[in-house]
Amino acid sequence: MAAITLNKARTIIRKTLAKSREMELKPMSVVVLDAGGHVLAFEREDGASPGRFGIAQGKAYGAVMLGMAGKAQMARAEQQAYFMAAVNGVYGGQVVPVPGGLLVRDKRGAVIGAVGATGDTSDNDATAAMVGIEAAGLAGEA
Amino acid sequence: MAAITLNKARTIIRKTLAKSREMELKPMSVVVLDAGGHVLAFEREDGASPGRFGIAQGKAYGAVMLGMAGKAQMARAEQQAYFMAAVNGVYGGQVVPVPGGLLVRDKRGAVIGAVGATGDTSDNDATAAMVGIEAAGLAGEA
Amino acid sequence: MAAITLNKARTIIRKTLAKSREMELKPMSVVVLDAGGHVLAFEREDGASPGRFGIAQGKAYGAVMLGMAGKAQMARAEQQAYFMAAVNGVYGGQVVPVPGGLLVRDKRGAVIGAVGATGDTSDNDATAAMVGIEAAGLAGEA
Amino acid sequence: MAAITLNKARTIIRKTLAKSREMELKPMSVVVLDAGGHVLAFEREDGASPGRFGIAQGKAYGAVMLGMAGKAQMARAEQQAYFMAAVNGVYGGQVVPVPGGLLVRDKRGAVIGAVGATGDTSDNDATAAMVGIEAAGLAGEA
Repeated sequence: MAAITLNKARTIIRKTLAKSREMELKPMSVVVLDAGGHVLAFEREDGASPGRFGIAQGKAYGAVMLGMAGKAQMARAEQQAYFMAAVNGVYGGQVVPVPGGLLVRDKRGAVIGAVGATGDTSDNDATAAMVGIEAAGLAGEA
Repeated sequence: MAAITLNKARTIIRKTLAKSREMELKPMSVVVLDAGGHVLAFEREDGASPGRFGIAQGKAYGAVMLGMAGKAQMARAEQQAYFMAAVNGVYGGQVVPVPGGLLVRDKRGAVIGAVGATGDTSDNDATAAMVGIEAAGLAGEA
Repeated sequence: MAAITLNKARTIIRKTLAKSREMELKPMSVVVLDAGGHVLAFEREDGASPGRFGIAQGKAYGAVMLGMAGKAQMARAEQQAYFMAAVNGVYGGQVVPVPGGLLVRDKRGAVIGAVGATGDTSDNDATAAMVGIEAAGLAGEA
Repeated sequence: MAAITLNKARTIIRKTLAKSREMELKPMSVVVLDAGGHVLAFEREDGASPGRFGIAQGKAYGAVMLGMAGKAQMARAEQQAYFMAAVNGVYGGQVVPVPGGLLVRDKRGAVIGAVGATGDTSDNDATAAMVGIEAAGLAGEA
């Protein structure tokens, strides 16, 4: 299994932020987690609210821990809210089950980490993050 | 009260995993808890997401602590979500009230532990775990 | 980076337990964690006290999260107790800084997980676990 | 009060990492927090252990929340360990009272954030982080 290097993580963040500026989104925050859900890199744009690290991390953390990206998590939460609430209990309240949490896969399809983006609508967050992941030569799942 | 021995716990896990392979389920994780809700044995198949221990344990923990298997817990959660949320508060966020958490009973019907399985749909998780429990000569309640 | 497969984790546990029996140690419990500190496999021998999962996991978790095996953690705790107490706060109280928490390295020296053993003296726990790790063809650091 | 911009935070991190490479330190992790103790940016070098975010954040968080840099925190912990333990209770276990947590001040001396570095000895962590803060045209207190 390949790991996300710091260089790749930087590329993901910079390209996500560049895409956010191009889309004229609100100030964006982006985290990159490794395959174990641990933080590799994070940046918060000027003007973003102070609590954005936790939201970004929560979007990415649930994705990697469950092996389920933000859109699938949201579908499950819409269907069975008490299940995602329970999952959140198990993971110490660190799961934010909405788009903007993306799985990152290597060439063979193995999950090697996740990206969490937050600042604008959940769908816009996800769109920008996907551009960042692909700019790093990796495959994203929103 | 008979206890689940480590040998029995191993049998439960191996046979649950064998059944999962036969059913062609996604990578499975299985935990066996004792009558006090404490972990006896656990295995996570290659390819399962890293957070599966907590989900498996949460399914089994609620079962043994409440004396209520996963299907009954889910019925209660569907009816009265705030009750299961409150139970989760009491038990430190460790309860995942869906199928795949099975009670294990001895010959006289006493609860001697629980099994938690996670990886595929909740119903498939429960089906595989029941096969594992019965292969160990014990009675399961899904 | 190679991962510890479930097969390797099973070998580590079985050989640690076999060595424990040969050394006539008290009932042993052994956990294997992946490179992100997440549980791969665990077994608790008959007669062990119910709370052994948490101790085993705590020995291994601190090792992998800090990249520092149990003996080095203990040395740091002896020297600077408040530092290890603080680390424990950061990691949610999951760190048990004594021998019996061993790093597992691949052929190139990268940490690919950790083993936690508990039941007898900390030094005996570490001795048995090292035998288990080596039996799986991996390198341990106690 | 001037704030630490994302550009400044990036400079702090890059220059701290550059200094770490020049000093041939172990893989380093660096966080920059704002005046409210919230994460602005973080990077973890390849080869660092997965739990380094929490340690870096803990060093910086205590600094900004108490208005006391790592060296002063350590002195207090050496003198009165129970006080720092109590502080940790107040701040949710997020304080790591050793060098490598540096206050960042603006031209008038107001605290505008903190930097946390971890990877090598606490003193080396602090030395590298100070170089990073000064490279961004700010004043650090170790």
